[in-house]
This record gives sequence, C-alpha cells and structure tokens, in this order.
Amino acid sequence: MKKIINDPAAVVTEALHGMAAAHPDLRVHTDPAFVVRADAPVRGRVAVISGGGSGHEPLHCGFVGPGMLTAACPGPVFTSPTPDQIQAAVAAADGGAGVLLLVKNYTGDVLNFETAAELIEADGVDVRTVIVDDDVAVRDSLFTAGRRGVAGTLLVEKIVGAAAEAGADLDTCERLARTVVTNVRSMGLALAPCTVPHAGEPSFVLGEDEIEIGIGIHGEPGRERTRLAPARDLVRMLLQPVLDDLEWQPGDRVLLFSNSMGGTPLVELYLAHGSATALLIERGLLVERSLVGPYVTSLEMQGISLTLLRLTDELIEWWDAPVSTPALRWGR
Amino acid sequence: MKKIINDPAAVVTEALHGMAAAHPDLRVHTDPAFVVRADAPVRGRVAVISGGGSGHEPLHCGFVGPGMLTAACPGPVFTSPTPDQIQAAVAAADGGAGVLLLVKNYTGDVLNFETAAELIEADGVDVRTVIVDDDVAVRDSLFTAGRRGVAGTLLVEKIVGAAAEAGADLDTCERLARTVVTNVRSMGLALAPCTVPHAGEPSFVLGEDEIEIGIGIHGEPGRERTRLAPARDLVRMLLQPVLDDLEWQPGDRVLLFSNSMGGTPLVELYLAHGSATALLIERGLLVERSLVGPYVTSLEMQGISLTLLRLTDELIEWWDAPVSTPALRWGR
Repeated sequence: MKKIINDPAAVVTEALHGMAAAHPDLRVHTDPAFVVRADAPVRGRVAVISGGGSGHEPLHCGFVGPGMLTAACPGPVFTSPTPDQIQAAVAAADGGAGVLLLVKNYTGDVLNFETAAELIEADGVDVRTVIVDDDVAVRDSLFTAGRRGVAGTLLVEKIVGAAAEAGADLDTCERLARTVVTNVRSMGLALAPCTVPHAGEPSFVLGEDEIEIGIGIHGEPGRERTRLAPARDLVRMLLQPVLDDLEWQPGDRVLLFSNSMGGTPLVELYLAHGSATALLIERGLLVERSLVGPYVTSLEMQGISLTLLRLTDELIEWWDAPVSTPALRWGR
Repeated sequence: MKKIINDPAAVVTEALHGMAAAHPDLRVHTDPAFVVRADAPVRGRVAVISGGGSGHEPLHCGFVGPGMLTAACPGPVFTSPTPDQIQAAVAAADGGAGVLLLVKNYTGDVLNFETAAELIEADGVDVRTVIVDDDVAVRDSLFTAGRRGVAGTLLVEKIVGAAAEAGADLDTCERLARTVVTNVRSMGLALAPCTVPHAGEPSFVLGEDEIEIGIGIHGEPGRERTRLAPARDLVRMLLQPVLDDLEWQPGDRVLLFSNSMGGTPLVELYLAHGSATALLIERGLLVERSLVGPYVTSLEMQGISLTLLRLTDELIEWWDAPVSTPALRWGR
C-alpha cells in the first residue's frame, strides 16, 4: 500500500488538521470529529448537517459553509460517524430553527443518525432526517437495505443548504430535500479499485481489461463485470439504467453531474461529460445545468459516476444561489 | 491501459466538447484548439494567455474566466500547443491593451510561444512573455534547459489575471508576473506513474515500496528514488529543498499550495498540507494563505507537490480578488 500517511489509524484526524490549516472560515474539531462553519450557530436558520465515512472527500466536510452544509461529521474511512459526533455537530450548529440531517442510505449511517436524532430530539430540538438513495445500480447491497446513497447527495446538500441560508423553515427544507431525492438518480463504474488505509489491500480486484458497472462508492459490487469499452459505450451503460429508473420525458430539464471516483483524470471526465450530454440531448432532454469534477470520491478509485437531477425553476434557483465552501464555491 | 476514452488521438478534442457542454461562460474552439472567456475580447484590458500540453487539467483551460486567464491553448497530452493555436487564442482575446503570455519552462512550449509572439508582434500587438520555472528539483532535465515550470504557474496566472481584470496595464502585469516567478518555488514526488493515452504504457516504473522525489509533471526523473516514508518525512523532503533554494527568513509571509498530481486522494493531500503547515510554522514562516487540491496534475499520477510563494500586501490583494473559472472560483 502506497499512501501519503503517517499511521492508518490517524488518517482522518491528521487530514482534519490540514483542513483547519487551509480553511480559517471553518471550525474543525477532532474529538469528537466534526466540521462546522465558523459563524455557526446561525440564529434563526435551519441547520443542515450531513456526514458519513471518510474517503469520499470533498464530501461531506468540503461542503460546509454558507449556502450549503452547516456542519458535517467524518467517520473513519468508509465507516459511519458515531451518534456522539453527530450530537456534538448539532450542538455547535443548531441556530434554534430546527435541524435537518441528510444521510446516505447505508445501514450503519442510517442507524447512527437515527440514534443521534433520538438523543437530539430528547433535548427538545426539532430534528428531521432525509435519506438519500440515488444509486440505481442495485437493491439490498453489501452495506444497504434498498438503494445506496451516492453522488446525488451533493445535489441535495447544495439545494437544501441554499434554501436554509435564505431563511426557509424546517418544513420547507425537509420538503425540498425529499423533492431532490425523488428526482435524482445515479450510477457509477470502476476501472481500478482503491485501498482503505487500515485494510492495506485493494477493496476488490479487476482483471487487466475488466471494469465493474454499477460499483458502489465503497467498492461494493455492481451489476456486472464486463470488458473495458469506448467511452461512449460506458456512458450509455451508466445513463440507460438511470433513464430507465425514473420516467424521464422528452423536454425534461435536467442537471447532469459527471463525477470522478478520485483517480480518473479530468480530461477523461470531461470527455465522458461531453458524451453524456450528447446522449441526453439525443433523448430529448434539456441539459440546463452541469457539474464536472471529483466531488464524491472513493479514495483513489478510478472510475466515474453520472447523476441526473430533474430540474424545476425552484431547484434551479437554489442550485444557482451563492455557495462558499472549500470544494463548491460560486456567486450569483 | 484502462482509460475512459474513445480514440487516443481524439482525447483532447472530445474533452473540449465536454468543457463546452459544462461551461457556457467559455467559448471553446477545437480547430485550432483554444478556450477563451465568453466576453472576450475585453476592451482596454490586458489579455493574459497561457497554454501547454494537456493532461495537467484543470491547468490551463480550467483557469479561463474573469479574474484569471483570458484564454488558454491545450496541446496534445504532454505536448506543446502550436504557434497557430496561440495566434488564434490571441486574436480572440486581444482587447487592445496588450497581451501577456505565461509559459511553463519546457523547451517545446518556450519555442512555440516564442514563434507565436513573433507572429503576433508582426501584427502590431504589444506582446510580452514571462517564463515560469518554479521547480527546484533539477536543472536541465529531460524536457528543459533550466528549471521546469510546474504548480507555481497557477499562482502566476491567478495573480496576474486579477490585476489585468482590475485594469492594470501591460507593464504592470508583466512586472507582477516576474515578481511572482521570483518568489515562488515548488517540488513534487510520485508514488505511482501515469499513462499517456497515445503511449499506452506507464511513463515510468516504480517498485512496490519506491517513490520518486523531485518528479516532473510529465513524469521526468527527479532527484532520487527512495523508499516510501511517513507523510511527515515526505513533506520535509519536499519543503527542505524549496526552503533552501530561496532565502526565506523567519517572519516571511507565505502562501502554501498543496497540489495533488491527480491520483492522490484529498484525505492524503489535506494530511500533507497539515504537516507542511506545521513545518513552516516551526521554521518561523507565517502561512497566510492556503490552496489545497488537484490543480496541476499529471493525468492519474499518484503524488503531490508543495509550492511556496512569498507574499506581499500587493500579492495578497490580487490573490484574494474575485475569480470565476471552472476550477478556481471565489468572491471577495
């Protein structure tokens, strides 16, 4: 295993020290581990909080800041954060207008966020939880009952975070999160695996010319192993199941998010994005917004995922709203 | 070779189609290939133009936009753009206030930008060229006479681009570029190589436990091959030569830029950034600005580079100024 680390057990804590050094507009805590925007709690604003295993950076801590997450809890690599981390993040982030927890659908995350929510509620805080399950690849996989939560989570965080920033109440934020979850679908593929530091070995093995279609962001098995194909065919293998899952209509307005799993060069990712855009246009969809980059990763895994979100004027307004986080940042 | 491509010869063109789809605020040309901000030429503003081989994305095309580059020319992977590309970019970007070419110090790039500059000058345009050579690792390497230009190029582009946006004249922009070049130093290391699409084979080979210290961004040999060490030692191996090269004084204000070569996970990069910040503080330097991310890459190469820029109030002002490009984007 070749990694730029000191001690596999200290990776997340030491990375948080780096985040603290790089981003003075965040408050970074290491025990328990959570990241919160420096001006939190923001009085009268809904606190939007997420978290999950580390190794998917910049998700989630890189999306903390005005216009997106109020706080995030990083667990150990590919392992859920604990209820006490989530409680501590809520305590730091709660501005008195309620708390919305955004949780990727993995058994460990769902359980720990549920436990945390009960404890937080017992403290008299109005807390709601929305589960993200955008991955169309498989049901009831290695770590999940139902569909997995993957790259679509970013879109939920951005849109709900923008509404919370503008003063939307907890009911509105929760409804908006559910709207995005209902309208977002993703699928990914891997060309090469990643290695979890404390495991020391690649999380799966692929042959010289083999790829995994429908891979999960922890390297969970997908739909099938097949031979590497030209990019345009790979894009079709990902988009067809996404299009089949939701009843897309010609004329639907969509956001296309082309995501790298970490180790795929940007030149390949843009190439795939161009190919995906062309395919969607061919199907009569209107690609009105794009996002391209390594945003929801699996360490150094080589591969991509494609995410489609059906847009409405409301969703576009929140998507376009200013955001200022380490990894996603724009003005009006 | 496992890559998400259709045809090795079409990679750059097809990636440009993806950029065009993703970024409506850019004008993307494929023949000859260049990217220019959509509102160019900006009347009365100096045009700041860069370019170089592809495979280092987001450098340079991802840095085109208000507050940074006016235009950029992507060559084939790891190969200089041609003079006619540069001429075409200048023709699209020239706002009548002169043109500044920012060139990484590689023999091919220097030659082609020089030829282009002569042709542009013959057209009556006031054109200046500043060569960036921030890599302290080696002199007179495989592709270069003198020091190589690497990640520090981003800092030159950002700072000069901000000044040009604010209306600085060509003399001021050129002086500023030379100031940054004089005060910026970098060094990198690799844990694993990358594969150029049209080559089909990794550009070098490293043993199971071996790393290359002082690697170039095309995989050029560095100072030495050594065994993988803990992150804190790797960081010292990079920062010590950087600190030795320029006469840094305790109390110097610096920007620390921790860059991934492409395939290194963000969690490792932040870990290195924390370690590098701690070392600089120990040496009495004041780390006043940070940048962390995969900005000057070598396809999927695993590794990092560390860049130090000595800051002044003037440089900080231009660094902090608003920028709006695909890869670097912030407000005031």
